[in-house]
Amino acid sequence: MKRVVTLGEILLRLSPPDRNRIIGSQSFDVNYGGSEGNVAVALSHFGIDTALITKLPDNPIADAAIQQLRGFGVNTDLIIRGGERMGLYYLENGYSVRSSRVVYDRKHSSISEAEISEFNFDQIFENVDLFHVSGITLGISEEAYLLARSFMQEANRRGIKVSFDFNYRSKLWTTDEAKAKFSKVLPYVNIAFAGVLDFTTFLGIDPEETSNLVTKMDHKKLYKKVNEHYQFDYIVSSYRTVVSASHNEYQGLVFNGEEAFQSKKYQLDIIDRVGAGDAFTAGFLYSYLCDKEEQYQVQFAAAAGALKHTIFGDALLSSKEEVENLFQSNTYHVQR
Amino acid sequence: MKRVVTLGEILLRLSPPDRNRIIGSQSFDVNYGGSEGNVAVALSHFGIDTALITKLPDNPIADAAIQQLRGFGVNTDLIIRGGERMGLYYLENGYSVRSSRVVYDRKHSSISEAEISEFNFDQIFENVDLFHVSGITLGISEEAYLLARSFMQEANRRGIKVSFDFNYRSKLWTTDEAKAKFSKVLPYVNIAFAGVLDFTTFLGIDPEETSNLVTKMDHKKLYKKVNEHYQFDYIVSSYRTVVSASHNEYQGLVFNGEEAFQSKKYQLDIIDRVGAGDAFTAGFLYSYLCDKEEQYQVQFAAAAGALKHTIFGDALLSSKEEVENLFQSNTYHVQR
Amino acid sequence: MKRVVTLGEILLRLSPPDRNRIIGSQSFDVNYGGSEGNVAVALSHFGIDTALITKLPDNPIADAAIQQLRGFGVNTDLIIRGGERMGLYYLENGYSVRSSRVVYDRKHSSISEAEISEFNFDQIFENVDLFHVSGITLGISEEAYLLARSFMQEANRRGIKVSFDFNYRSKLWTTDEAKAKFSKVLPYVNIAFAGVLDFTTFLGIDPEETSNLVTKMDHKKLYKKVNEHYQFDYIVSSYRTVVSASHNEYQGLVFNGEEAFQSKKYQLDIIDRVGAGDAFTAGFLYSYLCDKEEQYQVQFAAAAGALKHTIFGDALLSSKEEVENLFQSNTYHVQR
Amino acid sequence: MKRVVTLGEILLRLSPPDRNRIIGSQSFDVNYGGSEGNVAVALSHFGIDTALITKLPDNPIADAAIQQLRGFGVNTDLIIRGGERMGLYYLENGYSVRSSRVVYDRKHSSISEAEISEFNFDQIFENVDLFHVSGITLGISEEAYLLARSFMQEANRRGIKVSFDFNYRSKLWTTDEAKAKFSKVLPYVNIAFAGVLDFTTFLGIDPEETSNLVTKMDHKKLYKKVNEHYQFDYIVSSYRTVVSASHNEYQGLVFNGEEAFQSKKYQLDIIDRVGAGDAFTAGFLYSYLCDKEEQYQVQFAAAAGALKHTIFGDALLSSKEEVENLFQSNTYHVQR
Amino acid sequence: MKRVVTLGEILLRLSPPDRNRIIGSQSFDVNYGGSEGNVAVALSHFGIDTALITKLPDNPIADAAIQQLRGFGVNTDLIIRGGERMGLYYLENGYSVRSSRVVYDRKHSSISEAEISEFNFDQIFENVDLFHVSGITLGISEEAYLLARSFMQEANRRGIKVSFDFNYRSKLWTTDEAKAKFSKVLPYVNIAFAGVLDFTTFLGIDPEETSNLVTKMDHKKLYKKVNEHYQFDYIVSSYRTVVSASHNEYQGLVFNGEEAFQSKKYQLDIIDRVGAGDAFTAGFLYSYLCDKEEQYQVQFAAAAGALKHTIFGDALLSSKEEVENLFQSNTYHVQR
Amino acid sequence: MKRVVTLGEILLRLSPPDRNRIIGSQSFDVNYGGSEGNVAVALSHFGIDTALITKLPDNPIADAAIQQLRGFGVNTDLIIRGGERMGLYYLENGYSVRSSRVVYDRKHSSISEAEISEFNFDQIFENVDLFHVSGITLGISEEAYLLARSFMQEANRRGIKVSFDFNYRSKLWTTDEAKAKFSKVLPYVNIAFAGVLDFTTFLGIDPEETSNLVTKMDHKKLYKKVNEHYQFDYIVSSYRTVVSASHNEYQGLVFNGEEAFQSKKYQLDIIDRVGAGDAFTAGFLYSYLCDKEEQYQVQFAAAAGALKHTIFGDALLSSKEEVENLFQSNTYHVQR
Repeated sequence: MKRVVTLGEILLRLSPPDRNRIIGSQSFDVNYGGSEGNVAVALSHFGIDTALITKLPDNPIADAAIQQLRGFGVNTDLIIRGGERMGLYYLENGYSVRSSRVVYDRKHSSISEAEISEFNFDQIFENVDLFHVSGITLGISEEAYLLARSFMQEANRRGIKVSFDFNYRSKLWTTDEAKAKFSKVLPYVNIAFAGVLDFTTFLGIDPEETSNLVTKMDHKKLYKKVNEHYQFDYIVSSYRTVVSASHNEYQGLVFNGEEAFQSKKYQLDIIDRVGAGDAFTAGFLYSYLCDKEEQYQVQFAAAAGALKHTIFGDALLSSKEEVENLFQSNTYHVQR
Repeated sequence: MKRVVTLGEILLRLSPPDRNRIIGSQSFDVNYGGSEGNVAVALSHFGIDTALITKLPDNPIADAAIQQLRGFGVNTDLIIRGGERMGLYYLENGYSVRSSRVVYDRKHSSISEAEISEFNFDQIFENVDLFHVSGITLGISEEAYLLARSFMQEANRRGIKVSFDFNYRSKLWTTDEAKAKFSKVLPYVNIAFAGVLDFTTFLGIDPEETSNLVTKMDHKKLYKKVNEHYQFDYIVSSYRTVVSASHNEYQGLVFNGEEAFQSKKYQLDIIDRVGAGDAFTAGFLYSYLCDKEEQYQVQFAAAAGALKHTIFGDALLSSKEEVENLFQSNTYHVQR
Repeated sequence: MKRVVTLGEILLRLSPPDRNRIIGSQSFDVNYGGSEGNVAVALSHFGIDTALITKLPDNPIADAAIQQLRGFGVNTDLIIRGGERMGLYYLENGYSVRSSRVVYDRKHSSISEAEISEFNFDQIFENVDLFHVSGITLGISEEAYLLARSFMQEANRRGIKVSFDFNYRSKLWTTDEAKAKFSKVLPYVNIAFAGVLDFTTFLGIDPEETSNLVTKMDHKKLYKKVNEHYQFDYIVSSYRTVVSASHNEYQGLVFNGEEAFQSKKYQLDIIDRVGAGDAFTAGFLYSYLCDKEEQYQVQFAAAAGALKHTIFGDALLSSKEEVENLFQSNTYHVQR
Repeated sequence: MKRVVTLGEILLRLSPPDRNRIIGSQSFDVNYGGSEGNVAVALSHFGIDTALITKLPDNPIADAAIQQLRGFGVNTDLIIRGGERMGLYYLENGYSVRSSRVVYDRKHSSISEAEISEFNFDQIFENVDLFHVSGITLGISEEAYLLARSFMQEANRRGIKVSFDFNYRSKLWTTDEAKAKFSKVLPYVNIAFAGVLDFTTFLGIDPEETSNLVTKMDHKKLYKKVNEHYQFDYIVSSYRTVVSASHNEYQGLVFNGEEAFQSKKYQLDIIDRVGAGDAFTAGFLYSYLCDKEEQYQVQFAAAAGALKHTIFGDALLSSKEEVENLFQSNTYHVQR
Repeated sequence: MKRVVTLGEILLRLSPPDRNRIIGSQSFDVNYGGSEGNVAVALSHFGIDTALITKLPDNPIADAAIQQLRGFGVNTDLIIRGGERMGLYYLENGYSVRSSRVVYDRKHSSISEAEISEFNFDQIFENVDLFHVSGITLGISEEAYLLARSFMQEANRRGIKVSFDFNYRSKLWTTDEAKAKFSKVLPYVNIAFAGVLDFTTFLGIDPEETSNLVTKMDHKKLYKKVNEHYQFDYIVSSYRTVVSASHNEYQGLVFNGEEAFQSKKYQLDIIDRVGAGDAFTAGFLYSYLCDKEEQYQVQFAAAAGALKHTIFGDALLSSKEEVENLFQSNTYHVQR
Repeated sequence: MKRVVTLGEILLRLSPPDRNRIIGSQSFDVNYGGSEGNVAVALSHFGIDTALITKLPDNPIADAAIQQLRGFGVNTDLIIRGGERMGLYYLENGYSVRSSRVVYDRKHSSISEAEISEFNFDQIFENVDLFHVSGITLGISEEAYLLARSFMQEANRRGIKVSFDFNYRSKLWTTDEAKAKFSKVLPYVNIAFAGVLDFTTFLGIDPEETSNLVTKMDHKKLYKKVNEHYQFDYIVSSYRTVVSASHNEYQGLVFNGEEAFQSKKYQLDIIDRVGAGDAFTAGFLYSYLCDKEEQYQVQFAAAAGALKHTIFGDALLSSKEEVENLFQSNTYHVQR
């Protein structure tokens, strides 16, 4: 079995039930998630051996987070306990013309103040095939940035593939701050999850060059341009048209350095928008690690991302059969 | 008042709340239903005198099922108590690109092991106008098949109309098994609820003949072909296009041996897909028993089926006025 | 800050959770609302100083209603306590092809039996810029009609702008009864919230003249015709196409005596249909009181009304920034 | 099987969930009950054939009430539909040092304005063994009093036993009003459910005579005194010591004109206080109708009343085996 | 009407529903509270004009907190918006032999980093009769301590009564830290809420002197000793015996510098332990401000504190009539 | 770390929420448990390495059960998937005078039809210190009995300690059936969890010898008598007095072959009675495996069992610190 290690923050997510507003809500639904943890949970459901590296305080909330991750099949033995607090965020789920809102309360979290010396690389990277991290981890604090950079550098040094999802969050940092730090770690990256906005903001592509992307050939041309500088093994993107807060069009693309591959396009009614990118990432990584063809990779990734929109919570809880079934069959009939 | 008797299994249905997945759910919504029971409940709401024949264990779960049926107006006095257990199934409601899933746990249920000698035909068929059963009852066990066959035979012998819904379930039996048993009971059937797949699988129609059904005339031709062998008084069908797990197009057809009649076509957003066929069946049976015109029959049946998609639980809880209002008016304004 | 006073009934609203039916529901969601109270709550969220005038019994249910209004920022100090009971209504929320149903139980309510002598006009109208009332208040009883008429007359006498929403409810009174009473109060009205049906039913417009309303110019012509008799400062309308009980098209129009202004048209998936008109009204009154341009007024009003469809409960709980964002931006992306 | 008919009002009961207060509650638990209906439901669970006579409006709330009663086994075929509204009340369940609160909103209900001419005595009293009504029905309106009096008179005339529960409610009427009307109907009563307060308030017993009731003999002496005037076949009483809102001591007494019989005394932790008297009444009536010994009667009645305190909702949903088990066994072990 | 101003932190409280554990909970109940805010809410329900001074971030969570406080009648106009975050805590409610657990996550909150210059004393203290603060506010940060000290000093300077609840929290600071800061502010205090542990820890009383407190005279002697140094107008204490996490014995004492007064002792079954001290404080302050006799003061305070144990949420939502009823009557009967 | 393996059935437990009855419940709370699984979960929380051996069908319900066990820290890698169905039971939680009820539906479950050849003893027993099983597993089927016997025999052969909880269930088998099978496996048992009823029913003790057990010496004498035949290393018992369905007195005893040790006695208010015995068992096994003194063992076991009564669900979710705290401290104060 292939083994993946991810590094990132686990957050408590609090959201009013039933698409209600935060104001006036007498209870919040509780989920534990975070970009890299979500990737780990989805990979684990696909049958990949996964472990999450993070630091969590020594209190019952963090216990509950660990219990959930472990229940979903993620190895949590390497999680360090200590520090001040667990980050959290409030999510008000949008609907129709009402947009979703996110309020972060994640400063001073244990992982944002963790130090490299707390982690044992030999133990962490033993038998690992791929290391994954997202731009969020780089953005939460200077310490976390240094941590992520060291992990990427070390994985690279050990010949472990490095996967990186840009995942820029404007509530965490400015594009300038992000750009400076991204440029330091991109040299270690083999697989880049990024979209058009990332290309123009962080990779030096002229916005005009992205203005008229229609065919697969247009994308291929753009990807080639992007890859001139960094030579990623893969650039993987999902595209969405936001018709409303609860209806999106959705499609995936994979570029393998030579060719671009496109998934079918989904019309999605949305139960939970959060974590769709992470499910997409996991979908690609699974098919990549299992040596699937690129066309399968992009279909599997997009189907994983699409399915996530219909599942409450941060992470995709689908077997690989369920994902395959979505892009290989053409029906949504009840099976009975 | 017309009187209908149905024979079938009542199941406990357990489903995660709020379109959640089974995995991770801390509660299940509870419903009691089953194809024939659902027909009975809907008919009772339309004002038809209905009774359900079944066998249920002598325990509080079965008490709760009976309480619900009785509350919905179905006569439960003839239900036999005893046997080992009550069947149940788990339903994971799909949404958008995520399909619904059903897990059956209905083997060894009391009704599946009931014997004919436990039932008193004179008492059961007194003053009855119509007997209804579905293919599910034939499929749950050899005993249940024999039971259903005896009921159909006996109703036929007494001059009571027999209504039969094919309702093939691939998780219960193979098409070959079903075909063999269907062929034994179809001679007793006056009203057949069946669709194109049933025609080709069980009634010997060549799939090619069903490939290009567009106009009412196409359907009429097909129905005539079907009826060459069995001469049903009525063949009644509903058709759906499954756009997604939560959006279907839906339409009904009625064939009276001579002519085909078509309902308007509905665009349905779905709250609960289960039981729509049963509501459709009840809609037809109600209008048939009340001597309505065929055009009214098909409209009423389709409107009943359409409405069911928007109602949580197995059965349609609508008055005939609400059903009529759906196909006779053209507005969904709030009445206030 | 501008100050608005409204007069109207606060009702307890009881509705089955999760789009269930009333029959079989073991709990009802609780909301406190009413047309004028809803306007007050929305205005308060936009930053307008608002007070509600009503009469409520001296019991814990009314206490809870007042607590909710006060929490939402409405001044409740002038509410009179006493009388027999609090009005209530049951709402069964529709979905897709199933229409919503309302059952009123509001007769004999405290406000419907209140007398003019219980209210102190000098206190109520001190520093008030605008008085708002809806046709519902005129329809609930003879006493309430007299009350509303006196308030309108008095506001008019004091040079306070009078805003009136026709809000005809067929379950409260006949169109003839409404027409007779509307005609008595319309002379005091500066701002009229009314639509095509109101024009033909209550304002003497020939239905044929409303049959082919396509362009803004068509509407302007119609509004001019309406205004020949009453010379309202503003006539404000929202139009909807009811595609299904949970999907509507929605648009606003404002006529300032000279010109007609049209908002963008929204495709709405609906969580709660009740109170959309009141949010629209509040949206217009806010922009009117803040001296916005007419094009802003109609956009703000329509956006407020549109947003309300996505919020559970009777009243719009949106800041003016959220409303502006809806019509000024063109995206529903999650902000994070 | 014995047949009992009761006459009374069915109310919608709204109560905050989880022992919360009304203020701030966003949902209310829904129950349908009323003293006589509760007696009917409990009797039906004991195996007695029961029917409820009442009048309910023609709306979905009343449909839901009827569905619940019918589900619990009460015959609802004789319920008249029409009139203005369904009565309701709000219940705030107390706990420990916090008392329960009831807010009635039951004026103008359909049954309170029903007329005798709407009821067909021959149909209602066919094959009936006992008619039961409570003082509440006499107190809700003049019309309801006349109705109840006619029913009692008519039952008496037909040789049907009449059972009457004093059930004085201070929020409905004064003791003087009640006394005047009780005196008119008591001559028809065979079985009187009444306690010490009823004896002194309505039956002319000097309070001093009730001051020192310790032994069974004390009670017997008092009952004899009470019976000097009316010669009831049975006087049946339950006594409670209210240690707190959620802990009571509870005991039953039966007087058969000659002797007094006493049940064991229960220490009760309370989930739902409402309807305990009705369950006690049903417990006595069941054992009376089944010709049980007095000692069994009082034990069964008290056990039924005791059990009701632990069941949420208005009515006792216990089989006679469960009630018997409570007073015949001495353990609360889990049976598994 | 008397006017009270309080200064303190408002926290979001997250607690698993139904006495569940944090681990495995899929939702948390939401409350907004804090010692001084709780006092304000309770006082407001007793009819006192109250305002809360605090600083809250400019986000929807803080909006929701303000909405709740305002709904409960507390003036929130003087609340400053800004800063980094809103403090929160997790509460796992205990039961029987299982103790309650509190996890604080309140560092870096807006109020803990607020500065004195942000507050306008003239505006805040206008027409104020009493200023109240608790030791918690002094413990959350150095800034908050300085803030509280300034408020107390300033109130004292203006002749406004200062009320202080020791409220030592071991998770916030050590007893040594608390003692040092308490000693700086106690000179400004008129009314001290403190118990035996406070006397020995912070006020220099020898633990041995508190070992045998049985009679009122014992307490009086102790209070006199305490008052030798600070000369408080009143020392007010509640005492509890913790029989289990859900059952306590509870009693109040008031010392007016001369005499000690004792309330009745309550046996409490507990729904929510949090905020009982604040309700007790509010109970005393209300009766003090309304010039009640000391015996009424102590009874009202203890009854307020007792009632709070039975109400879910942080604050007492009881009218003064309900509190009076608890200590003046001796019954917990349902009133109906 | 010590390693424990258990063998047993995992059941889906369905129970009405909020102490409601099964009849009328619209949802059931979902838990996954079973005697040996509960022991494993509790041991895992105490820090013991545990694995559960069972067989579960390959469906989403079993996936959910495994997810929960894994989340609670139990190794589930050795669980075999396949067979017909997952066993389940319905639990109606009692309260006060109302007893709890259990309805089993566990026949034909996968584990009850599993065969020895499906299990790999070398893999299962690698590095194992103790094997635990309960009498329930012996009672569910002949196959399960053979399975359990083989496991016990094999563990014994390998020098692994065998722990056995009698756990007789009258709904599974008769005492005669149990006695016959118990006698076959008891020779392999080192640690026996059994009480007085087990001694007399299964171990040949004359009931008269158990009639007057008051002091520790009485128990010691009895235990010695029991041990004459089997020479268990330990006999461990919990005793309860069932005051009501929701209040029990509770105490533990440990006999080490020489001496008897007694825990303190707890007064328990009960949230969930199920699994208390399993928590007690885990409490003993933990302290036994960690070489604690007998007095600590019995205190820890009893405290673990006591705590379980206050935790909803089948298993104890308490750290060893929480358990120690219960018997070492004497307070239930909120820690804050």
